[in-house]
Amino acid sequence: MTTKTKGRIFSGMRPSGRLHLGNLLGALENWVALQDDYECVYCIVDVHALTTLTDGHEAREIAASVNEIALDWLAAGLDPERSIIFVQSHVPEVMTLHTLLSMVTPLGWLMRVPTFKDRVRQMDETEESVSYGLVGYPVLQTADIILYKADTVPVGADQVAHLEIAREIVRRFNNMFGPTFAEPRAKLTETPLVIGLDGHNKMSKSMDNHIELAATPEETAARLKTAFTDPQRLRRTDPGRPDVCNIYSLHKFFNPDDLKTVYDECTTATRGCVDCKAHLADGINKSLGPLRERRQDLAAHPERLKEILADGAQKASAIAKETILEVRERLGISIP
Amino acid sequence: MTTKTKGRIFSGMRPSGRLHLGNLLGALENWVALQDDYECVYCIVDVHALTTLTDGHEAREIAASVNEIALDWLAAGLDPERSIIFVQSHVPEVMTLHTLLSMVTPLGWLMRVPTFKDRVRQMDETEESVSYGLVGYPVLQTADIILYKADTVPVGADQVAHLEIAREIVRRFNNMFGPTFAEPRAKLTETPLVIGLDGHNKMSKSMDNHIELAATPEETAARLKTAFTDPQRLRRTDPGRPDVCNIYSLHKFFNPDDLKTVYDECTTATRGCVDCKAHLADGINKSLGPLRERRQDLAAHPERLKEILADGAQKASAIAKETILEVRERLGISIP
Repeated sequence: MTTKTKGRIFSGMRPSGRLHLGNLLGALENWVALQDDYECVYCIVDVHALTTLTDGHEAREIAASVNEIALDWLAAGLDPERSIIFVQSHVPEVMTLHTLLSMVTPLGWLMRVPTFKDRVRQMDETEESVSYGLVGYPVLQTADIILYKADTVPVGADQVAHLEIAREIVRRFNNMFGPTFAEPRAKLTETPLVIGLDGHNKMSKSMDNHIELAATPEETAARLKTAFTDPQRLRRTDPGRPDVCNIYSLHKFFNPDDLKTVYDECTTATRGCVDCKAHLADGINKSLGPLRERRQDLAAHPERLKEILADGAQKASAIAKETILEVRERLGISIP
Repeated sequence: MTTKTKGRIFSGMRPSGRLHLGNLLGALENWVALQDDYECVYCIVDVHALTTLTDGHEAREIAASVNEIALDWLAAGLDPERSIIFVQSHVPEVMTLHTLLSMVTPLGWLMRVPTFKDRVRQMDETEESVSYGLVGYPVLQTADIILYKADTVPVGADQVAHLEIAREIVRRFNNMFGPTFAEPRAKLTETPLVIGLDGHNKMSKSMDNHIELAATPEETAARLKTAFTDPQRLRRTDPGRPDVCNIYSLHKFFNPDDLKTVYDECTTATRGCVDCKAHLADGINKSLGPLRERRQDLAAHPERLKEILADGAQKASAIAKETILEVRERLGISIP
């Protein structure tokens, strides 16, 4: 890793199957761009995925998900020559650090994190019934960041509070044991809200309102056919309202040069939704063409993917081992 | 490790300085005896010591404590040729397993453990202010036991509940991911209550009412001089009541052949407390003589101690690595 002046970025994604347009526009494109200015550490956080595990069946899906995400990442332009790209659990030191940081993190801090309460609700559980590990979610995130001595974390505005707890844990560690870690800074990034095919919710796999990056052109067109548009445009001859139409919002990303025409033809009912969707499908397919080609190519060579991830783990591991030595020293548990 | 038919024992002690008579009579002698029938894994649990850490100063004492305890253990007869004797943190896999078990342990189980509530009270803290790691104490204990595939844990009657949570975590893991671990059994051991020199409280370092195993004969005699005896025996000529005297209770362990004389001379005021204590000092010094000699010898050769602990860690590590491979496989986070 060459040293870039702007610092070291850490960011991660949970393995929950193939990525979709929302992930690409909301995060991945930004991650690709960050590689120009930062040392980047990008991690598929499979240990985090275990925090909400409810059965062994789910566990067996994690490995498959990890592969799919890695393919999407590399196809989208995360570059193993410039960035460290790896799977969280392949560097077990993160679990060591998680355990050690748990000794300096007051329980109250974790129980008060709003995302903890949200997740408990989403899972239809209680604070009693969720796993102990779920409570430690922010501790594991902190371990991720500081294990690799990252100083910068790209976050959306809604996640700034989340990083604050990492900063608090670092401050507490440094206060107790002497200056060891830099407080990670948030790098605020505008993440466009990508609405799903249902026209209401954020695009997500769990809502099944998404288009996978890996979808074929035909699948892309077929998915779009089922998409909601302006609910007030009931007949072909009704003028549409692009400003409330999720299809139009996707045109902004995938047919930027054509926007005015799309807008005008919708509002004047010159073009119907079916044609408008077909036009969007073309835009998406054209835009994602090279990504999909790279993905197919890589998927056909699993040994190459395996090698890339092993190489990433090795690079991450070298940094991790240094950090753990330092932390052990601070905590009085050095191996003599 | 040769396979002994009765199974594999795991037991641990927190490093909190030199051991004392209470530790010897209450646990260590039993541990020594267990080596005849069981494969024994004896662990100095320095990671557990971190759960109640309040500052960096304390951390720096841990390493020194680890050495003192190791010296006491070996001097008392824990035998590195027959048992695995090592320091918990030297096998970091226990922290990996702790993190992974935290994913299958409901928070409610841990918050309800009576010893958690006790410890919070003892530390003069609240459930909010104690560390997240303290909540996970029983998870770390479970990790200790099952990482080394121990099936038997020697416990006093008051700790049976503590082992029950380990059994519950194992059952839950096995239910979710298929049979992986044996439920550890409690091996009930009678632990004599050793009263400290204050005549009231259990002998303990924190009450400063103890005699260290490593004390010199002179220190032993001096410590005993300050000890409380029967509070109603105010004058030399008052008859004493051995049954309420902590000095007499120690005679039971260290002057067993002489007990009747001690008893009679006390109740008839034939012998005063000063002489009685000197007699006890002789008994303790004679009984601990060989232990103290072995301890001094070993303390003079720190490289030998280091080697013994490194060898123990290596043996423990070999078992731990196997277990972790199996657990990773079950959880879907195998390294391909």
